[in-house]
This record gives sequence, C-alpha cells and structure tokens, in this order.
Amino acid sequence: MQIKSEHLKSFVSEIFKSVGLTQQNSEIVADSLVSANLRGVDSHGVTRIPIYVKRLRSGAVNPNPNVKIIEESDATLLLDGDNGMGQIVGTKAIELGVKKAKQNGAVYIGVKHSTHFGTGAYFIEQAIKYDLIAYAMSNAPSTMAPWGGFQPYFGTNPYAFGIPAGKNKPIIFDMATSVVARGKIISSEAKGEDIPLGWAIDKYGRPTTNAKEALEGSVLPFGGPKGYAISLMIDVMSGVLTGAGFGPHVNNIYGDFDKSQNVGHFFQLIDINRFMSPDQFKERVDMMIDEIKTAPKAEGVEEILLPGEIELNIEKDRLQNGINLGREVYESIKEVGLEVGVDIETYQTL
Amino acid sequence: MQIKSEHLKSFVSEIFKSVGLTQQNSEIVADSLVSANLRGVDSHGVTRIPIYVKRLRSGAVNPNPNVKIIEESDATLLLDGDNGMGQIVGTKAIELGVKKAKQNGAVYIGVKHSTHFGTGAYFIEQAIKYDLIAYAMSNAPSTMAPWGGFQPYFGTNPYAFGIPAGKNKPIIFDMATSVVARGKIISSEAKGEDIPLGWAIDKYGRPTTNAKEALEGSVLPFGGPKGYAISLMIDVMSGVLTGAGFGPHVNNIYGDFDKSQNVGHFFQLIDINRFMSPDQFKERVDMMIDEIKTAPKAEGVEEILLPGEIELNIEKDRLQNGINLGREVYESIKEVGLEVGVDIETYQTL
Repeated sequence: MQIKSEHLKSFVSEIFKSVGLTQQNSEIVADSLVSANLRGVDSHGVTRIPIYVKRLRSGAVNPNPNVKIIEESDATLLLDGDNGMGQIVGTKAIELGVKKAKQNGAVYIGVKHSTHFGTGAYFIEQAIKYDLIAYAMSNAPSTMAPWGGFQPYFGTNPYAFGIPAGKNKPIIFDMATSVVARGKIISSEAKGEDIPLGWAIDKYGRPTTNAKEALEGSVLPFGGPKGYAISLMIDVMSGVLTGAGFGPHVNNIYGDFDKSQNVGHFFQLIDINRFMSPDQFKERVDMMIDEIKTAPKAEGVEEILLPGEIELNIEKDRLQNGINLGREVYESIKEVGLEVGVDIETYQTL
Repeated sequence: MQIKSEHLKSFVSEIFKSVGLTQQNSEIVADSLVSANLRGVDSHGVTRIPIYVKRLRSGAVNPNPNVKIIEESDATLLLDGDNGMGQIVGTKAIELGVKKAKQNGAVYIGVKHSTHFGTGAYFIEQAIKYDLIAYAMSNAPSTMAPWGGFQPYFGTNPYAFGIPAGKNKPIIFDMATSVVARGKIISSEAKGEDIPLGWAIDKYGRPTTNAKEALEGSVLPFGGPKGYAISLMIDVMSGVLTGAGFGPHVNNIYGDFDKSQNVGHFFQLIDINRFMSPDQFKERVDMMIDEIKTAPKAEGVEEILLPGEIELNIEKDRLQNGINLGREVYESIKEVGLEVGVDIETYQTL
C-alpha cells in the first residue's frame, strides 16, 4: 500500500478533524505522524492513529488545548499543555520559544500536563529553520528499570537535537534512551522470534533472548549505566522540574482511559547569532561534516553516516516514491477512518 | 602513600604558585585536582600535575588568564578563556553564569581558547549550591573515530550534570562519551594485559582485545552510534559554536608544546525557582531517589545505585581516611614538586 505523503497527510488530517480537532490542530498532528513515516520512524507514524483516536473519543485527551504560560523569565518558559496531544502542545511551545530565543538569545522550555508528543525530530525541524540549535526531550510511561533493577521505572525517554548546516543537510538526531523501543520486542514475540542479547532483562533481572520473558521484565538503557543516567536526567527535566508526572507517575497511553497521561517535555533553543554569525557557524558545521564523511572507513563499512543520516536518506526516497504502510497498518487506519466517516480509498494510492 | 585531602591540596597549591599562578588560581587548580581524587576519578586528579606543570613552564598555557566576555545576551555568554587552565577558566565561567542565571532565569555559556578543564563535576558542584540545575561539557583532543571509521576524530568529550536534592545527596553525574578513557588502554598495554571486547577498534576498524592494536586504532563511543551522536553534539556546542578548535583541530595536551590547545567548553545553568519552588523540586527529586533506591533488585545486585553514587561513596571514604595515591603517582608528583622547590615530605602523610 504505497501512498504519497501529501495524500496520506490529507487523510490523517480529516480523521482528526472528524474527532473534534480544529483544522489547524488536525494538520499539525497529520504533519507530525506522516513526517515520522517519511523519516522511516514508522513506530511513531500513522500506526498511532487508532490509539490517539481512541483516547480522544474517550475524553482522555483534550482535542483543542489552551496551552498557557504559567511561569516566565527572560530565559525560561513553563507551559501547561492542558492535556492536549503532545504534537499540538509541543508546536505551541516551539512557537513561543522561538520568539523568546530570537529576542533574548536562548530559552529553556518546560511543559507539563501533556501527552505523547510523537517524534522529537518534528519539533527540531520547526526550530532550526530560525538559525537555532534545538533540543527536544520527553518522559514517557515506564518501560525501563533503573540500572541494577528489573521493574520498569523510566520511559524510553527520547532525546533529540538539531544542528543547522550550510551546503549540507542539517544534522537532526532523535533517539530513545533504551537500546530498542519496546515495540520491537512486542513484534518479535508476535512472530515467535528471539531477541538479541542486550536488549532486555527478564522479571528476575537476568539478560534474556526470549521475547516473552523480556516483556515481563524490562528493556535496557543504551550504553548501560550511562544511558540510565541520561534517561534519569531527561525525566528530571521533563517531569520533576515541570510538575508533570515522572517515573511510574506518568500514565500509560494504552490504558488509563479515564486519566490524563501528564507527560512532561523539555525543549532548549539557542540562537546561533549570539555566539557567531550563522553563516560562519554553518561553514564550520559543513567542515566537520565533510571531514567525517571523507574519513577513512573501517573494514566492511561502505559509508560513514552522520547522526540522523539514515532517516534523511529514507525521507528523500519516500518523498519521491511514497510511503509503503504495510497491509496491517493500512487496514487498521482504514478501519478507524471508516468509523469516523473518512474513507482512505478515496485518497489516491500509487 | 595515604594522604589527607587538605594536606594534598596545600601541596598542589604550592606547586602551581611556584610556577606563576596567583594564590587564588593555584587554589582553584589544587581544589579541582584533589576533588577528582576524592571522588575516585584518579585519572583526572594529581596524576595530571606533571603535564600541567610542563605546559605552564613551556609557555603553552597562560598561568593567570584574563577571561573576557566576547558576546552576551540575556540568556547567553560567550567567553574567551585567554588560554588559561580550564579549571580557572571554567570557574570564572560558572561565576559569571550563576549571576546571570539567578538574574534572568537561566543561561547557556560557551567558552573558547581554553585548555583541559579536569572533571566536569567540579563545576557542577560549584553551581548547584545556588539551586541551579547545571550541565558541563567540553571537547578534547581526538581519540575516538566517527562510527564506521577508525581514525580518531572526536575527543572522549565529557558530559556532566548536577541535580540538587533535599534530604538526599545531590545527583552529580560525570561521564566520558567513550566506553572507557584511553588511559585505561594505555595502562593495560603497559601491564601486557588484554582489554575487553567493545572498548576499542584497531587501525583497520576491527574490534580488538589487544591493547597495543587498540592504541593504534580508536576508542569506541559508549552505546555505539548513539554515543557517537552525543559526542558530536558536545563538540558542536563546545567547539564549533564557540569558535574553539573542534575534531582534530583541538591540540594535544601531551604534544604541541608550542601551541595553545584551543579547547572549548559549554555550560548550562537553569534556575529551579523559575519552574517551581526549590523546596518542592527537592522533595520531588527525593521521591524519585527513594523510589529508585527501594526498587526491587535484579538477581545478584546488592544495591541499586544512582548516577554518580559510586563517586559519592568513594568521596565519603577518602574524606575520612585520606587518599591513597599509589607509589608511581606519588613519586611523579614528588619529583615535580622538588623541581619547583616544594617538598611533599613536609606535608603530613598518614
């Protein structure tokens, strides 16, 4: 089921409009989801439509949040996301933040009372257009034990950053702080496949290659105790400092339909122009990129990649050739569409 | 050679005074080095005295830098470190930054034209006393290849952060973005020992357990391509954005005695009070700490540790019982002391 990204975006936008979002808010959510698919991050793309729609229809998420500034200083913003979709709340945060960063040089933005925000890269893309260096992080429902434990405490707390470049494409990097997303283990279990050692531990805290046992245990942080530390830091900034939930006090997106998630986010925007001219900065970034791309390659390596370059290459391909959703995802969003009166078949497939 | 930290500090301070540092600057350097030993980070402690003194005496480092503000906005500072010792330059950066963060809510501080700054934790400790969340990062001479390459490009670019707590000790975390410091491989090679797989690659980019081959190749980033991305990000903030050297354009501390290193640092300070009352924040951090410490432990794990807790425990022990330098380090700093007219034997050992 190959579909052009602009057609998919129109379809997704119609779905969210039909469950109560304004035109503008629907477009933001559609844009975020399809952007994830374009970049090859299908776990955060249109596959999320059924759960998002379910939460909106159950009243667990506010379709049109009134995002408010609660605290403000020259260099900081604290926002209440009014239990809106994280994509909408985060977009508002970036809009307010860009203004402040361009005025005052930089900003730190805390957000509480939000929900799953999709990919961090989506916000990074919005911000770096303004010659800003940008960071986006968020906490998430528990799936990862503290190092030495086995009971999930932290989420896979994503960390994303963006660095503008000149003649080269900007560097946009977006990662989970777990070795892999829990979704990959669910998918292995469904197929009856083993998982590689190092992805997860079982319910006794023992390393396991058994997907079922892993799901009863915990995913592992990337880089061992160092990744654990970074995941904790993200939860402190996104959850503890903002007044959002943290650790197991962030509610599950796939349950708790009578409760708001109270996810927290944290963004950072830095105006390059307060350090050096953006042109000079971009020349220096280009120099770093060129030096890395032309560095001698290890045996068996075809090309040295920059952080986020895999996603960039997929995006180039999918913008041109469309997005292949796979039958299962296609059917699931088709079904949701029909429930709310939007037929994907009327949107042109390739 | 067990020695009380305060005696060691006096000795170290006298050494740096004797090579031209002011009393105040000598005390900063001594404090930073001995703090590293107290925390068990002996690689960044007094073992560095010989190379620091050598660079000062050769004129490669400015003993009493005039750290200047080059660019300034409400939320940013760009400083020129005047080729001073990183400990002195960084301390000045924190002093200026704390003032701005308390006034305006937060700050991002870039520093160029500096040198090796010791441990990031030293600056974190200074900043978090003021109810700030603090970050410290720095670039460093090349020892680590980009992911897929084998020729060193990035340094082991350290990343440190600090989070104030209430009844619990603050969380102070300080890591290299390599799996291990290159020094550990040098030490294995000296002893004729193998190194664990995963620490390094040889000059063809192949994983190796041979320390000698590893030293001809490159150390590996923690967490594979994710650690590579974080190391790159640190170099962009510390080196590219500040106008310092970056990648292989940072000069080697153990060579280039006719050149300044042009190391860059990047600090971030965030006033907790602009988000919530520091008391409330600390209660929430305590709650997170308590929940983690009492979480069920994996099989074979005696205690779940917080990021930086190992260093905290060593510090408690060494503050009470003194620091054991080991004969080799003791002899090397004794020798440097005698060269500049300071005799460690006159400082009380235990």
